[in-house]
Amino acid sequence: MREVVVLGVGMTRFGKFLERSLKDLSGEAVRDTLEHAGIDKKHIQAAYVSNSMAGLMTGQESIRGQVWLRPIGIEGIPIFNVENACASASSAFHLGWMSVASGLYDCVLALGAEKLYDKDKVKSFMALGTAVDIEEVHKIVEMIEKSDLGGVSTEGSGVNRSIFMDFYAALARYYMKEYGAQPEHFGKLSVKNHYNGSLNPHAQYREVVTLKEVMDSPMVSYPLTRLMCAPISDGAAAAIIASEDFARAYTDKLVYVAATVNQSGISDVPLGGEGIVRRMVPLAYEQAGLGPGDLDVVEVHDATSISEYAFMEDLGVCGPGEAKDWIDKGWTEIGGKVAFNTSGGLVTKGHPVGATGLGMIAEIVWQLRGEAGKRQVENPRVGLTLNGGGVLGTEPAAMSIHIFKK
Amino acid sequence: MREVVVLGVGMTRFGKFLERSLKDLSGEAVRDTLEHAGIDKKHIQAAYVSNSMAGLMTGQESIRGQVWLRPIGIEGIPIFNVENACASASSAFHLGWMSVASGLYDCVLALGAEKLYDKDKVKSFMALGTAVDIEEVHKIVEMIEKSDLGGVSTEGSGVNRSIFMDFYAALARYYMKEYGAQPEHFGKLSVKNHYNGSLNPHAQYREVVTLKEVMDSPMVSYPLTRLMCAPISDGAAAAIIASEDFARAYTDKLVYVAATVNQSGISDVPLGGEGIVRRMVPLAYEQAGLGPGDLDVVEVHDATSISEYAFMEDLGVCGPGEAKDWIDKGWTEIGGKVAFNTSGGLVTKGHPVGATGLGMIAEIVWQLRGEAGKRQVENPRVGLTLNGGGVLGTEPAAMSIHIFKK
Repeated sequence: MREVVVLGVGMTRFGKFLERSLKDLSGEAVRDTLEHAGIDKKHIQAAYVSNSMAGLMTGQESIRGQVWLRPIGIEGIPIFNVENACASASSAFHLGWMSVASGLYDCVLALGAEKLYDKDKVKSFMALGTAVDIEEVHKIVEMIEKSDLGGVSTEGSGVNRSIFMDFYAALARYYMKEYGAQPEHFGKLSVKNHYNGSLNPHAQYREVVTLKEVMDSPMVSYPLTRLMCAPISDGAAAAIIASEDFARAYTDKLVYVAATVNQSGISDVPLGGEGIVRRMVPLAYEQAGLGPGDLDVVEVHDATSISEYAFMEDLGVCGPGEAKDWIDKGWTEIGGKVAFNTSGGLVTKGHPVGATGLGMIAEIVWQLRGEAGKRQVENPRVGLTLNGGGVLGTEPAAMSIHIFKK
Repeated sequence: MREVVVLGVGMTRFGKFLERSLKDLSGEAVRDTLEHAGIDKKHIQAAYVSNSMAGLMTGQESIRGQVWLRPIGIEGIPIFNVENACASASSAFHLGWMSVASGLYDCVLALGAEKLYDKDKVKSFMALGTAVDIEEVHKIVEMIEKSDLGGVSTEGSGVNRSIFMDFYAALARYYMKEYGAQPEHFGKLSVKNHYNGSLNPHAQYREVVTLKEVMDSPMVSYPLTRLMCAPISDGAAAAIIASEDFARAYTDKLVYVAATVNQSGISDVPLGGEGIVRRMVPLAYEQAGLGPGDLDVVEVHDATSISEYAFMEDLGVCGPGEAKDWIDKGWTEIGGKVAFNTSGGLVTKGHPVGATGLGMIAEIVWQLRGEAGKRQVENPRVGLTLNGGGVLGTEPAAMSIHIFKK
């Protein structure tokens, strides 16, 4: 397997775009990415296109990538449509990486796009609800009810929410019970990410918020308030993946794929504690020849703020039980020890499911190239993305970790 | 890229299974495939799972492969969900091949499954209708109307049909106009494939039919009658893809992947004549170091019998305009010069969209291993599968050619 480089990235702003189509969003992201890479579309030898819910949201199944890429003149090449719930885009990126690392192609496109907003919000929540085994949703509820974490919260039951929020809320209560985390710790992560999002022109929400505003926002599922949860989003993001030789002809800002690790969850792992991320992290560090001490910038899948909290410990950035101290000391802010979610994270940048993973990769590539504008971390050398999708039992159905280095 | 072997294949019978779930169908196909390969499920390092329409037919999007594989104990590994309309399964197979050829894995699973039967037949046809750009279906109709091939047939307009049947019918009329093909030539292919299907325990239809019965069956779209068209089907098929070294520990019947070529169609190519298959075929033969004269067994995508007719010429098995003579002489029957669709083809074996390509690969692997029972061709050494999916403009949205050799 040869060295692989991310030659260019691009994305639309994430947000609510009721009047824009997936073709339109995809087109913008791909054009921006080609421009960033400095290449022409004719150089693209294959495309890996991710989306999770267009079938249910727009009626377009079967050949989504071909339909979106043809209007911008990308056709005739192999196009593969890839789906892995909220980890779809990282999965597409991984397959693109494999096709270049293997020597099969020198330059390929990974594109992720999703439209989740609809005038009928129930449709959006129904589509999101397919990221579980739809015949066994009751098992997630039972698992939470059987735990000693207080069952499914009724506090926020008046709020629109998917089953995922109850799942994450149970995880939050686990960390509160086991490690003394307070709801305010999750709130502080939301405050940090809202500040970061305010610096990011691609973010869905760009308003700075106070801890009081986060804690006082409507309860979704105890202890998670609305401002600790990712919104519904539309958007697209893309990357050009190339061999080192190909990339050198276009840039001297080489960002290497140092590790790419994907797994699905396994059954019957207790909630919290040792889980899929902790099984994957050593593999990713080994592949990259790096450790948590090398990380400068990290984008993690904060579908809710408890996820970011847990991932800080899972990644080994801090030890078990230490996340709350790191948060209190601001060590994951821009300018801190390891900057987490400089983009604003899912909570403020937005979460257009099939595009999310490539949005994370775009942020890390911009950071490593020194192109992150007002949210730029000082001379980062190593970045990591962690993108998860779906729930089966107590674990994500798909999880993807990528490490990038200059 | 290293040599890759198909270590085992398996499939359900294709058919109408209103009472069986996709989990159930997938489970049967995977268990049969593991048994055929002689390996345990613990050897599978990654899975590439294809389906095209479960979102619309069953409501399950996002993580279909994980949902179907977990009940049979396959979990924890990377699982990628792949979609490319009727070429989904070949696309999944290709990605599996790439992951082994690259050296990333030694043994992976490709699985395709689809359920298209529903008590509401309109739902099935609507789902099938997503294999085009759903915003531009009218363009296909306009293209046919603007051609000098007689427009969209009204003869069969009382029959349930998708837009694809009108597309194929126009192609048939092109071959009739340009090369003097007669509707009976398409009919004779259906007779041959019904005979082959009668020998195949996995085929949906196992009745021998006469040419008169084919020609007298209800008109779907002139000149295609119902018995020249693939049915709606449910089913699953799978393959174990392995490195040569891994495979040698389990079998001495090695079936090599000699070529794997995938493309999407391009715009504005006239109907008939030079098209995507003719652009791909030289690439496939070059990759394999083989030519059409080397082929012993061929499975092609006869969504309708005209497709098989056109592919005979596109593959270079016979020259332009010669397909009708080959058909009259029976040269593509079992025992003929090159046996086409020994399985019965899509027309009689069935066409469960996301499983079809792996069903073709299963037939070729059985033939090359001498395990095809009553439909066994005498000592075949080289086989080819051609699996297409969707329509954009005048070309398939996805096309996949694989060549296998002993």
